[in-house]
Amino acid sequence: MSLGEFDLIARCFRPLATHPASLDLTDDAAVLSEEPGSDLVICKDAIVAGVHFLPSDPPDCVGKKALRTNLSDLAAMGAAPLGYLLALLRPGGIDDAWIERCCQGLAEDQETYGLALLGGDTVSTPGPLALSVTAIGRVPKASALKRGGAGVGDDVWVTGTLGDAALGLKVLRMAFAPPDEADAAFLATRYRLPQPRLDVGRRLQGLATACLDISDGLVQDAGHLATASGVALRLNAADVPLSTAAGPAPGALAAALTGGDDYELLFTAPKTARLNIHAVGKTIGVALTLIGEVQRGAGVTVIGADDMPLDLKDGGWAHRWD
Amino acid sequence: MSLGEFDLIARCFRPLATHPASLDLTDDAAVLSEEPGSDLVICKDAIVAGVHFLPSDPPDCVGKKALRTNLSDLAAMGAAPLGYLLALLRPGGIDDAWIERCCQGLAEDQETYGLALLGGDTVSTPGPLALSVTAIGRVPKASALKRGGAGVGDDVWVTGTLGDAALGLKVLRMAFAPPDEADAAFLATRYRLPQPRLDVGRRLQGLATACLDISDGLVQDAGHLATASGVALRLNAADVPLSTAAGPAPGALAAALTGGDDYELLFTAPKTARLNIHAVGKTIGVALTLIGEVQRGAGVTVIGADDMPLDLKDGGWAHRWD
Repeated sequence: MSLGEFDLIARCFRPLATHPASLDLTDDAAVLSEEPGSDLVICKDAIVAGVHFLPSDPPDCVGKKALRTNLSDLAAMGAAPLGYLLALLRPGGIDDAWIERCCQGLAEDQETYGLALLGGDTVSTPGPLALSVTAIGRVPKASALKRGGAGVGDDVWVTGTLGDAALGLKVLRMAFAPPDEADAAFLATRYRLPQPRLDVGRRLQGLATACLDISDGLVQDAGHLATASGVALRLNAADVPLSTAAGPAPGALAAALTGGDDYELLFTAPKTARLNIHAVGKTIGVALTLIGEVQRGAGVTVIGADDMPLDLKDGGWAHRWD
Repeated sequence: MSLGEFDLIARCFRPLATHPASLDLTDDAAVLSEEPGSDLVICKDAIVAGVHFLPSDPPDCVGKKALRTNLSDLAAMGAAPLGYLLALLRPGGIDDAWIERCCQGLAEDQETYGLALLGGDTVSTPGPLALSVTAIGRVPKASALKRGGAGVGDDVWVTGTLGDAALGLKVLRMAFAPPDEADAAFLATRYRLPQPRLDVGRRLQGLATACLDISDGLVQDAGHLATASGVALRLNAADVPLSTAAGPAPGALAAALTGGDDYELLFTAPKTARLNIHAVGKTIGVALTLIGEVQRGAGVTVIGADDMPLDLKDGGWAHRWD
């Protein structure tokens, strides 16, 4: 049995609409009261089955991934999440139970990250399943972190560990099997469930000079930051943080440099901010690792163990595996 | 030849990003300065090829339809459009020329309706083509029109003419051929290019007690307004406005009552507002037609020419034709 659109709203989506701006999803749009002294940060990222997630991924993970890839964009701007709108493109094969489990995942993440559903849309599609999320956050006026502020001599930092998600995708596709099952599960979860670094992003206001989230691979996204800031980034391969699960894997460094779906933050800050940045990492319990320096010039160089720059022809990752 | 994602942004999307909130599309999100004394109105509607538009529809029309279905939601709330975000789900068969033409359509509508691209996302999909738009508008604080304010004794009004789009879809599917080619073209355009009633919506602030846009058919959407307001709507079939192209068509009244994609406004207002409402219609040059009355009770009744209520089992339209 399939619920009609209005029953689906009542049963699955209305319980998620806990912010007054949603108007309980009764109207055509959300109405959000504007606050003086702050800016809204608004982003929109879609995920498609077979492109950004595996059709076999659990529904609650799919809902969370759709939301978290957007929350990662808010994190990169230093914004506190407020709400989101969801467009669900639903093929015939997605039954109501799937949507209920997807909404359970969303409900859990609303609790974790402190935001609520504001509105959206469910439409039929001949397939594949896709979720388009618009996330809305808030920053104090004129304090959003941007890509274009890195200064020559600044440190280059990353949060967490890199390459896990790209290796996790290999695990899920049976292309790589770590000897330890716990490592396999860790890597798969890193692919399925990004950890948006919202707490870090907010605390970087006033410390970081530029910031973005790494979704297309460290080298490619570092290139975007370098271009936006009009500088060069020199990164040290030996300093790129790898998890204990990823470290021993074949191709771990390549995954860390060019793999996608990390959703960690890459940011720059003056050397004078080092103590404060370490303190942020300690407070939040997230590793913040110094991996390079901002220099005059353009582009990204990664220095290998022998002090020679690595050849980075294959600088990015196309979010696609077939 | 296919442009990469970043070339596509530079060539097609950046020229549309004329509002400072877009940050020239360089960052992960838009940053919108909040204004005291106003509310933001935010809606999100997706359209999918083969469901909401014909795969053969011209690309500029598809772009405009994606935008206008959302602008119609802003119109229903009385909001002035400000900007939008676009997620484009792009199958392999959609080449760069298609996207350029789609963006030309968007550019024209940005000019017409006074808004700009703020951000978004282009992602690959095995198909079909889909566009998810998030539109953002502004209203003076606490003045957004809503569905839930109709009072017993209020008049019920609609803008424009109804049923044209449903008949236009029949024309495009070769299921109906009006004798006059100009009529055929008019009806097809009414399907392809909704006319969001933004000017009407804004001027209804302080006049209308409830408002929504008719996207799923007059009777079904009237039902939503009745439910949200806790009242009954009694509509007169003979008063439902038909265009001169639709009037002589077989099934014109059914199309007007239950056909979809009209994107006209349905609103209620006290009888004392009649003169003012007629003045709004005259100022803007849009027909505003009185079609019924708000009564105690629940649900929607349509009274036929013989003063008997019509049987409305098939109350809506599923946005689908196969």
